[in-house]
Amino acid sequence: MMLNTNKNILIVGLGLMGGSYAMGFKKLGFKISAIARRQETIDYAIENNIIDEGFTGPDPEVLGKADIIVFGLYPQIFIDWIKDNQQHFKKGALLTDVTGVKGSVVYEVQSALRDDVEFIAAHPMAGKEVYGVENADDRIFHGANYIVTPTSKNTPEAIEDCLEIGRLLGFANVSVLTPEKHDEMIGFVSQLTHCIAVTLMNCCDDENLKNYTGDSFRDLTRIARINDKMWSELFIMNKPALLHQMHRFEDQFDRLKAALLNGDEQTMREMMQISTTRRALFDKK
Amino acid sequence: MMLNTNKNILIVGLGLMGGSYAMGFKKLGFKISAIARRQETIDYAIENNIIDEGFTGPDPEVLGKADIIVFGLYPQIFIDWIKDNQQHFKKGALLTDVTGVKGSVVYEVQSALRDDVEFIAAHPMAGKEVYGVENADDRIFHGANYIVTPTSKNTPEAIEDCLEIGRLLGFANVSVLTPEKHDEMIGFVSQLTHCIAVTLMNCCDDENLKNYTGDSFRDLTRIARINDKMWSELFIMNKPALLHQMHRFEDQFDRLKAALLNGDEQTMREMMQISTTRRALFDKK
Repeated sequence: MMLNTNKNILIVGLGLMGGSYAMGFKKLGFKISAIARRQETIDYAIENNIIDEGFTGPDPEVLGKADIIVFGLYPQIFIDWIKDNQQHFKKGALLTDVTGVKGSVVYEVQSALRDDVEFIAAHPMAGKEVYGVENADDRIFHGANYIVTPTSKNTPEAIEDCLEIGRLLGFANVSVLTPEKHDEMIGFVSQLTHCIAVTLMNCCDDENLKNYTGDSFRDLTRIARINDKMWSELFIMNKPALLHQMHRFEDQFDRLKAALLNGDEQTMREMMQISTTRRALFDKK
Repeated sequence: MMLNTNKNILIVGLGLMGGSYAMGFKKLGFKISAIARRQETIDYAIENNIIDEGFTGPDPEVLGKADIIVFGLYPQIFIDWIKDNQQHFKKGALLTDVTGVKGSVVYEVQSALRDDVEFIAAHPMAGKEVYGVENADDRIFHGANYIVTPTSKNTPEAIEDCLEIGRLLGFANVSVLTPEKHDEMIGFVSQLTHCIAVTLMNCCDDENLKNYTGDSFRDLTRIARINDKMWSELFIMNKPALLHQMHRFEDQFDRLKAALLNGDEQTMREMMQISTTRRALFDKK
């Protein structure tokens, strides 16, 4: 497949992420169809030039003409949706997703899928603390990372097309990881950090705290505003990798705590020097 | 005392914080003297209109005419400096500081101090990850919190003057706490968060991590670039309160970890709902 604007793109699930994909593709000149549960979502998206047409159910005709289908649904819903509706897909269609956990999704979808369509998983590492198509904004992709997680079932062409989707949408960095390596990494940089933010907010119920707070606390808890249904599902889907990361974090946290307890300034300073050096690599260019 | 521009203000220690105080006061029309170790610091500050005059040592004449002295030094240096030089202070002078820990500073300074000058502690909760007068910027105070921590030795007038300093410098919120309550609170919102950021960066030495990182990880580790000398000193000065906060954090973290381990989605979602509700209070207006 070549990603040109003759291709029909269908977005299934028109929330923040699906809406932002639609917006980005539409600006590039693609014709965008979408499926969303609520008619109001579709009306909003059409009025705001985010999509060209929308449907509240899996219309066979719409599914049958889509060359590229992007799933912006919750993980379990998305797997079931594919199983229920795949008979309508166009032969040769390319399916991709935005799910934050891969190992427990990719293999299940690929093994259930018809042989003449291809599912290639991707994780756009962008987001906001708000939801819904009303907050869709393709600019969240700019400067962000995008990861494709192919398996042995994927073709080189699909991998390249999926990377190209990331580039077209304006991601700063597109890369390829195995589903397993992706989940290990995401357990650390995304899920563990959300665990920490949620934990911090559960430590203290003093409503006056906001008057004594500096930017540090605000930074560490920005992501504590969290979609509890989605994130608890993602945590459970990635349970072994996330538990491993939580243990690793606790080991290092205990090392710092022991150093403080023992007045071991040297160890504290060494850990701070390491963190300072490593963190310098992470500033956005 | 009334805070009008006839008062001579002396800044001791012309780093990021001392420099930002100087800059803010100077814009208000005060005449600013400063003491810094290096002549280049003074030259830079004069050339950039941050101070009016500067000295590399505790010039008795300068100390003798200062109505307000702001200490922007490291905690232990600052305590020794006051003990060594207090004989030169002007009768009735008001001394204040910017130190991030209070209990282990305030009582020691006040008990060592001459009876005819007054030390009233304050904590401007603002900062950057960079240092030095070259990065001074009084706009870091805007939108930030400022806390005065008086003891029974302080007069109502000094408390009011110290609050007024915070208001004049443009802090969004000025408040009063006991040194003990301040240290408990700062152990939570500031020191614990720095511990977490440092710990996170010590968990992983994969240099490719930056290609797979979203904003969450960047947010939680921004403060991992840390002045190791200053922060290890601050941690040790606030050891009991910080250890207490580290234990509280671990208790909640373990609760979340156990919920994940047991597949207890209900507890995870409750913790996330609490964090979402509480965090909503913390956005800057």
